[in-house]
Amino acid sequence: MDSEINTLQQLKHQISIMGGYVEKALEEATYALIARKVEHLDNIDKIEEKINEIHVVIDAACFKLLAKLSPFASDLRLILACFKMNNDLERMGDHARNISLGTRMYLSRKEIPLEKDFLQMTNEARWMVKAALDAFVTKDAEKAQKVLEHDDVVDQLKDRLTQQMKDLIKKDPDFVESGIDLILFSRNLERIGDLATNIAEDVIFIASGDDVRHGGIAVDG
Amino acid sequence: MDSEINTLQQLKHQISIMGGYVEKALEEATYALIARKVEHLDNIDKIEEKINEIHVVIDAACFKLLAKLSPFASDLRLILACFKMNNDLERMGDHARNISLGTRMYLSRKEIPLEKDFLQMTNEARWMVKAALDAFVTKDAEKAQKVLEHDDVVDQLKDRLTQQMKDLIKKDPDFVESGIDLILFSRNLERIGDLATNIAEDVIFIASGDDVRHGGIAVDG
Repeated sequence: MDSEINTLQQLKHQISIMGGYVEKALEEATYALIARKVEHLDNIDKIEEKINEIHVVIDAACFKLLAKLSPFASDLRLILACFKMNNDLERMGDHARNISLGTRMYLSRKEIPLEKDFLQMTNEARWMVKAALDAFVTKDAEKAQKVLEHDDVVDQLKDRLTQQMKDLIKKDPDFVESGIDLILFSRNLERIGDLATNIAEDVIFIASGDDVRHGGIAVDG
Repeated sequence: MDSEINTLQQLKHQISIMGGYVEKALEEATYALIARKVEHLDNIDKIEEKINEIHVVIDAACFKLLAKLSPFASDLRLILACFKMNNDLERMGDHARNISLGTRMYLSRKEIPLEKDFLQMTNEARWMVKAALDAFVTKDAEKAQKVLEHDDVVDQLKDRLTQQMKDLIKKDPDFVESGIDLILFSRNLERIGDLATNIAEDVIFIASGDDVRHGGIAVDG
């Protein structure tokens, strides 16, 4: 499969495919959780296998393209950004899998009616992943910027949900298992949002060469 | 500062310096938590600033070295591994900071006598970080392999601690805040352990060119 990746265009295409798998895994995991449909978790292991496979393939392709093309300037930026995005996407897949594994337990526990904060958080995280990938495909630095702005929203929702669950458990300790599950799900969604901002930063880096992380610390490189 | 990184030796040296900062941040955060000494948290923001600064510098240096040297084979492997390790170390720093921020709250809450599982987990995570960095400096693939073997230990300790905390909260819901804090700390320690295994995998990749992730899926690259 790696032998098919001989151009930067093909590399970008593989990143998009991988991004599609991650979106699908996240969609299935969150749908199973919210709609309480455990059968939607069955596909996730298979999607995860594909993500792991393409992860290794893309890394090897980046190595090969760097050795073969000796790229500089924008081509080098693109390959390095793909190399990073590949890792970030794989981690998103891991978080989707964490949600999936947790959901199997969660659905057997005392049910907590899901508040709109949790639903909004799920939607925000999914939107961030989709928008970051769209920004990559269409080279849209403005859209990438919007993804960065959403990071705080997810963080605030996570904090609110955590407090709600603590209050609920205090009132009725029988909710300890499902309440802590929801806190951990919200942590996974927050991390997925963080990783989407990494991708958005990479899109800005590809487009402009600017490193916007950590408030854009200047380097003389 | 980046202009000082002109050779692979200098690049490796900077990674070691960054690793030292991460070890220090983790040491201070876990000591403050276990010994209940909040003043040990005061240095962490400064260490974190240094980690963020060196993170951007190392990324820029990798870019520059790739453009300047057009490396292949083992030199290319080393630069790409440093590029990855740089990101993994920065994330470890984030997790140490999460523990630090959480500890400030935790120390004001109802005290839970720390069980030996939690102390062991802290030691395991710190050992994994140190051993992975040592393996990198001394190019010791055998030591890196040992780091990989410790990942399961940390995972099991985390699962045990999580169950202990749930049981404790069920018995006495006044422990909900501090109990959930400890569960989240154990999550951060587990992630630090995961990131140490990433570095160990990179050390093996530098030494052998083998990609041992995901069970070593074969690629024809």
